[in-house]
Amino acid sequence: MSDPGVRARVAGLLEQLHDDTTAFFTRLDRGGTFREDRWDRPGGGGGVARVLTGGTTFEKAGINRSAVSGRLPPGAAQRLGARVAADDETTFYATGVSLVVHPRSPMVPTVHLNVRYFDLTDAAGRRVDVWLGGGTDLTPTYPFPDDARHFHRALKSICDRHHPGFYPRFKSWCDHYFVNTHRGDERRGIGGVFFDNLRDGESGLGLDRLVGFVLDIGGALPAAYEPIVERRRELPYSERERRLQLTRRGRYVEFNLVHDRGTTFGLQTSARIESVLMSLPPLAAWEYAPVYEPGSFEAELMAMLEPRDWVGETG
Amino acid sequence: MSDPGVRARVAGLLEQLHDDTTAFFTRLDRGGTFREDRWDRPGGGGGVARVLTGGTTFEKAGINRSAVSGRLPPGAAQRLGARVAADDETTFYATGVSLVVHPRSPMVPTVHLNVRYFDLTDAAGRRVDVWLGGGTDLTPTYPFPDDARHFHRALKSICDRHHPGFYPRFKSWCDHYFVNTHRGDERRGIGGVFFDNLRDGESGLGLDRLVGFVLDIGGALPAAYEPIVERRRELPYSERERRLQLTRRGRYVEFNLVHDRGTTFGLQTSARIESVLMSLPPLAAWEYAPVYEPGSFEAELMAMLEPRDWVGETG
Repeated sequence: MSDPGVRARVAGLLEQLHDDTTAFFTRLDRGGTFREDRWDRPGGGGGVARVLTGGTTFEKAGINRSAVSGRLPPGAAQRLGARVAADDETTFYATGVSLVVHPRSPMVPTVHLNVRYFDLTDAAGRRVDVWLGGGTDLTPTYPFPDDARHFHRALKSICDRHHPGFYPRFKSWCDHYFVNTHRGDERRGIGGVFFDNLRDGESGLGLDRLVGFVLDIGGALPAAYEPIVERRRELPYSERERRLQLTRRGRYVEFNLVHDRGTTFGLQTSARIESVLMSLPPLAAWEYAPVYEPGSFEAELMAMLEPRDWVGETG
Repeated sequence: MSDPGVRARVAGLLEQLHDDTTAFFTRLDRGGTFREDRWDRPGGGGGVARVLTGGTTFEKAGINRSAVSGRLPPGAAQRLGARVAADDETTFYATGVSLVVHPRSPMVPTVHLNVRYFDLTDAAGRRVDVWLGGGTDLTPTYPFPDDARHFHRALKSICDRHHPGFYPRFKSWCDHYFVNTHRGDERRGIGGVFFDNLRDGESGLGLDRLVGFVLDIGGALPAAYEPIVERRRELPYSERERRLQLTRRGRYVEFNLVHDRGTTFGLQTSARIESVLMSLPPLAAWEYAPVYEPGSFEAELMAMLEPRDWVGETG
């Protein structure tokens, strides 16, 4: 690794992103404020959790920053995609910002975003692997194809500034990641972008350029999400839309607890549990075997969850 | 195995238990009725799901019976506790009844019960292992120590009819099973009994005697649970008790999706997903980092979740 200072530089950039993102969602909420909890991890490191509950726009919003380090059990580095032998004893360092916001109104979609940096050090203290990951995805309740198009176009525009291959590849990665495989491959939302294990030299880009890309994704929501909130926040809705929202949130819980790698990693590394599970919705429902009439907004929403080329469509 | 007919006999007894239990909860609800869905599993077998939603007493009640069979992937039999070599190719047959009922009132505790039969057949068609399992546990929101004592005493009385060692051993097994290890070993409720891998000869009892014990546990709720419902159903409560109920249901979801072996087995064996996840509550909440005042009913409930000798206490 040619640049031993990248870890500290990324950590500083993520601290700034955490502050900027908190300010952004405070403004977007129009009334609520975030409480902050700083926590230490027994094994090393810690984090800063910021949570807004009972806001004007957001029923719950959580924005977490963490920087943790420690020993990895044998095999764990490989499961994370590391380029080290299975029996190498390694020390990991991971830092990231992650957020999930659950709007009150079912007309406003839920959004998730995460960016992260990971490095591994061998027993001799040499940095043996460094990579970046991240992504953002949108989970609507009410089927507005315009919102899906807007979200994907904004992400494509950011990706295209860095590499023409990034958007198609990371859009597809996202479609294959946020999947409730136990529900017949039902997607939790309409996707976005997702990527992991981006290393120095990826697609011809050096680590500094990749850091720039990841930070751009980290700052995507003012362009990708704010316009959607603004055009949907005043729309009226009924108990029926609210019911679908709570049921979709139940699926969100299923994905996060059964499949999500970030959650699993958090549960395994003894991070602060309230921060790891901050992404869970304030309220969620499980309706038994719901049936949606053809042509209903519920059926349209379910159809929208099928992966689709959102930027290529006219509209 | 000396008794090849045990599988069919247990299956018949469980069918009767399913019907009796459905009738029991229909009566206990005082107004609601169960809908029934029969389902087939592509790999073999199927089940009968019965669900009551929006009842008078129960917000949701699910009683499922299933009988499924198929090939087990290598290692899967060992993880279930089977006495076969890891590379043996085995066919499993599993049948059971399981139920979870979520009362409307937070003054009435949630109850879960499951009884199951499992056998394995080798490539030559020989039955190579047979065992029984089961259990029942109570999850209160409002801290009534009398209810915990009643529930445990009723279970001890049933266990003692079969073997004096069963209650202490299976009570402790239960305390160690329904644990959210990711939440500092917080228990999901006040326990009950839990047991698995009971084979012919267990504690000196033959398979027929063990079947009798397991069916007695299957029929425990009229004695162990009904009196609790009757003395708590009319109690008044406020939004504060309801809020704790929804938060405790969130913990229930966490346990079932992250830790429960029955759920994991269901997700892996392609059983009907709506039946596997029928146990999830109709509505659940995740409150961020709640703090309960010393002496509050919330704090008392949390203290009650610590494993305790409920039958030895006076009161």
